[in-house]
Amino acid sequence: MNQPTSFVHGGEYSDYNQIKLDFSVNTNPLGIPGNLSYALTTNVDVLEKYPDRRSRELCLAISEKRGVPSDNIFVGNGASEVISMLTKVIAPREALIIEPTFSGYERALLSNSSNISYYALSRDNGYTLTPDFISFLDRSKCEILFACSPNNPTGRIIDLALVKEIAEVCEKKKIFFILDECFMGFVENSDSRSCQELLADHPHLILLDAFTKLYCIPGIRLGYCISSNNELIKALYDAQPEWSVSTYAQLAGKEALMEDKYVKRTTELVSTERVFLIKELRLLGFEVYDSMANFIMFNVPARLGQSRDLQEFLAKKYHILIRSCSNFKGLAQNDYRIAVKLHDENELLIDAIKDYLSP
Amino acid sequence: MNQPTSFVHGGEYSDYNQIKLDFSVNTNPLGIPGNLSYALTTNVDVLEKYPDRRSRELCLAISEKRGVPSDNIFVGNGASEVISMLTKVIAPREALIIEPTFSGYERALLSNSSNISYYALSRDNGYTLTPDFISFLDRSKCEILFACSPNNPTGRIIDLALVKEIAEVCEKKKIFFILDECFMGFVENSDSRSCQELLADHPHLILLDAFTKLYCIPGIRLGYCISSNNELIKALYDAQPEWSVSTYAQLAGKEALMEDKYVKRTTELVSTERVFLIKELRLLGFEVYDSMANFIMFNVPARLGQSRDLQEFLAKKYHILIRSCSNFKGLAQNDYRIAVKLHDENELLIDAIKDYLSP
Repeated sequence: MNQPTSFVHGGEYSDYNQIKLDFSVNTNPLGIPGNLSYALTTNVDVLEKYPDRRSRELCLAISEKRGVPSDNIFVGNGASEVISMLTKVIAPREALIIEPTFSGYERALLSNSSNISYYALSRDNGYTLTPDFISFLDRSKCEILFACSPNNPTGRIIDLALVKEIAEVCEKKKIFFILDECFMGFVENSDSRSCQELLADHPHLILLDAFTKLYCIPGIRLGYCISSNNELIKALYDAQPEWSVSTYAQLAGKEALMEDKYVKRTTELVSTERVFLIKELRLLGFEVYDSMANFIMFNVPARLGQSRDLQEFLAKKYHILIRSCSNFKGLAQNDYRIAVKLHDENELLIDAIKDYLSP
Repeated sequence: MNQPTSFVHGGEYSDYNQIKLDFSVNTNPLGIPGNLSYALTTNVDVLEKYPDRRSRELCLAISEKRGVPSDNIFVGNGASEVISMLTKVIAPREALIIEPTFSGYERALLSNSSNISYYALSRDNGYTLTPDFISFLDRSKCEILFACSPNNPTGRIIDLALVKEIAEVCEKKKIFFILDECFMGFVENSDSRSCQELLADHPHLILLDAFTKLYCIPGIRLGYCISSNNELIKALYDAQPEWSVSTYAQLAGKEALMEDKYVKRTTELVSTERVFLIKELRLLGFEVYDSMANFIMFNVPARLGQSRDLQEFLAKKYHILIRSCSNFKGLAQNDYRIAVKLHDENELLIDAIKDYLSP
């Protein structure tokens, strides 16, 4: 049965105006890069022009940056439009999602009336995808597979050797394998972890990425996918509403791709602060999962929770918002996700949690 | 047979960089309003936040401005996303389009595998929709009807009494009637011409509107539809990709709705200049259709055309771009559409056309 989950996301809190510090949204803690912000404020006149429907200049910039052919790139109004177009164009009767994960795959599939199966990651090994999945996939009747690496909300990366095995099964069975790498930019040495090198030999593999999180521009909407299947790319553009990607988004994307120093600063900061937060949360007795991304999932054991919801407590007393994971499939009321933010902010959070735990 | 037209639009010209004066795009000749531009440059920080997925503040502003319930409004990433969502949610097997018109309806329907029938307006009466359409509609098996008023590219408005008759047939036959009023804001006394007053009693009637053209922000993407069918509105939001409408677009929309003086200046200017252009074009011997919008369609009789394409001539010699209508269903190589622009610009165009006609 397709039991839709509730599609509430980070940053969506009924009393949001009261929130001073938002750990529920996984965007870059450094904020929008200065040059990017400058480019947008000084180019308002681009809004007077219709966007290029194929985002050609941006595709060339992505192509140059990543070393993939520019006609392998489909640009959309945020990764969520790319997901929506993929489900529309592929129109799978049967879909498979590795969960817990971002609910957007399920939502897009349901809106296209696909049947969805779920492969459940296990809390016992910290939600790591293991080679056991291969035999499951081999038996599956799915026509599309959604996976996320680093996975939201667990922060776990799928080992590249395993990604390759999956891609090979998918190639053999003609399953479209959508690998969402929207948080890969926050990972150190991401080049050696991304599935990009597999794309050329695996036309059913689709790499999904976005500008939203890494450059802290969720308000501007810009995502893309890469696939060596040119027919698929063409079909995506044919299915997309005209002028979907705003001129501002196209401009922002081109500017963002020049922000190498900002990205380096980001991965260094995230790496240091993630270690800090994980250590502190473990000291407090929480079960913390080994994230490699810019967010961390943890579980508050019942014996510590004192029957109070941590999210409510932090929001009401400290105006700090964290993400309750209770609406992720397979996760529970006492699972939470926090973004990795600036050191002072992270300390404020830890102090507030200490207050929560104090008798 | 569904023979797709070529989906090339105004502003899309292979040698666009050479163009100095663009009459092919129907946006406001006054350019982006100063206050709107100021609001955008001074609020770049809104890009750091995820958009409200329901555009609630903007819906309230539209609701207040137009006097319709805010839960009757669906906001999308440009009118083209609204059209795309409507075809997806209604998923009609049979569709009817009154043509010639904007090709986006056909494109969206084809991408949802609908069968499309066309009702052809007649050149003989200047492409005016007449009550003859009612009997055609009565016999039609369509589940959705697309019409545009003022119609692109003819500029003709459908008489409100006839809109009401059509809406009543549609109600009786449960046909969703999408009336695209994206250019209605340019029309003087538009309140008395819009179908808005019919919405409450006709839950199958859907009014489509956009901010793009009237406020000269095609680069920002913002459109909406209004319907008293709340189930439809809910289904549209459910089908829409998450966060489709950027924070900038939502901000721009709220600002734009305060620009009453700018809109008044616009309708006055457009009205005066449209009269000027129509008179001049008729003096030159062209067949000009009676537009009520901010653009004008005309035909260059073969005896005047001298076998040269007017679009090519103006682009190459004067770097002026006009819209060839040859890819509109039912229109010909020698049909053209021009936007109404500022007086000096309009004079430049007329002078250039005079050169085209000179022996």
